[in-house]
Amino acid sequence: MRVAAIQMNSQDNKEKNIDKAEEMIGEAVSKGSKIVVLPEMFNFLGAEEQQPANAEKIPGLTIKRLMKKAKSHGVYILCGSILEARQAGERLFNTSVLVDPKGEIIAKYSKLHLFDVSMQGEVVYQESAIVQPGSEISTVETEFGHLGLSICYDLRFPELYRRLTVRGARLIFIPAAFTLHTGKDHWEPLIRARAIENQVYVVAANQIGSYAPQGMNWGKSMVVDPWGTVLSKAPDKESVIFADIDYSYQQEIREKLPSLRHRREDIFVL
Amino acid sequence: MRVAAIQMNSQDNKEKNIDKAEEMIGEAVSKGSKIVVLPEMFNFLGAEEQQPANAEKIPGLTIKRLMKKAKSHGVYILCGSILEARQAGERLFNTSVLVDPKGEIIAKYSKLHLFDVSMQGEVVYQESAIVQPGSEISTVETEFGHLGLSICYDLRFPELYRRLTVRGARLIFIPAAFTLHTGKDHWEPLIRARAIENQVYVVAANQIGSYAPQGMNWGKSMVVDPWGTVLSKAPDKESVIFADIDYSYQQEIREKLPSLRHRREDIFVL
Repeated sequence: MRVAAIQMNSQDNKEKNIDKAEEMIGEAVSKGSKIVVLPEMFNFLGAEEQQPANAEKIPGLTIKRLMKKAKSHGVYILCGSILEARQAGERLFNTSVLVDPKGEIIAKYSKLHLFDVSMQGEVVYQESAIVQPGSEISTVETEFGHLGLSICYDLRFPELYRRLTVRGARLIFIPAAFTLHTGKDHWEPLIRARAIENQVYVVAANQIGSYAPQGMNWGKSMVVDPWGTVLSKAPDKESVIFADIDYSYQQEIREKLPSLRHRREDIFVL
Repeated sequence: MRVAAIQMNSQDNKEKNIDKAEEMIGEAVSKGSKIVVLPEMFNFLGAEEQQPANAEKIPGLTIKRLMKKAKSHGVYILCGSILEARQAGERLFNTSVLVDPKGEIIAKYSKLHLFDVSMQGEVVYQESAIVQPGSEISTVETEFGHLGLSICYDLRFPELYRRLTVRGARLIFIPAAFTLHTGKDHWEPLIRARAIENQVYVVAANQIGSYAPQGMNWGKSMVVDPWGTVLSKAPDKESVIFADIDYSYQQEIREKLPSLRHRREDIFVL
């Protein structure tokens, strides 16, 4: 079963971003992908003050277009994430949506951990000014395995990936807009660790390059297997990368090195 | 404050191993180390059937020699781990001991997660045949910061490092006999991830090379800082490596990127 991760350099023009995402989904499908993964905020990356106006209900304009696309191509699309507006006057959610080959939403996840950091001169970002955190984890059983959802900054919290794994996830998505400054040192070791310690496939689709007013993302989208091997890594530009998922290999790893069975549930509540 | 990690190629001769450890501790101290970290099973690596005869009470021969050494040098020594015999007729423990500059034992930790794997043709090992698992985590406050204990295979269990961090650890030890086969793919990403996600210093002292009857360890002992930078890494031979610990830099990282404060304690019990 082939997956694709789409690495985009989204900007503050939603229409153009969706057009580009659809084009790249087409490329992913033409090469045999059954699950196509978009990055976080694939439909809009821009200034904080523009964000509320670019938020949507789910399903709204963006997700409806991708539902149509999933159905016409007959594939799963992980709609990286978009800004979701639930109630007028309330803060938004940063929400990821999984659409199945019938064009239906089968899983939804709102980012649990918000990126509030103040690295002066490097990255200053207060996601919680606009976004409120989700409160539930999300996994879903499909014909292509049990899939788990997460978003970007969540990557720093191993307890989330542990719970997704305990709930049965065999492949976990990490759509992201992981910054250049933090990505250079944290992106790959954290992704590989999540794959190794949980013996899961990880599909991490990142944003790449700069966007207004002053964002800069790390790229290096990758697919990592349950042994921690980087099967595929994106070049330093917008691109679609591919990898073949082999759940029987995963099962073999889990039997030979049964670390998941060695978890001390008597000591750690997971 | 300088730490040293000692990378050894221990064999099945306890006396020789302790002599060598003492010599390498001397080298570490001569270069200004205040905390010296030995690898797992530094005093004995050999066949399963030889293990019970090489187990000791704590403190026994091995630990008493290192208590004397810690006192005479005026340093902390993390006695990697040894096989501990508590009760006749019972399985052993794989126990790590921290000795202070007065020569007193101030922390003790018995490995929680035992290495039972069956990678045919690569690594087959059943630690639980001889060893029983510990049941408690261990951290201790010292003049050189709050220190946390762990051993080798524990590295695969992020929940342990989370709890050590939540309990206050600022620097965590990982003495190890991490195998060549697993180490080549898992050692560095897991160590760096533990450092990054918990914003702690990690001092990982590994065994290197082969020992009878057919063991082969990965080496690559390292000290990693709370940003995930590998400050120091051992060459592919027995050696002592050094790094300077800067808790004010750690504090700066924790303030600029406050991920530990972003943990969702309402969702994950840690």
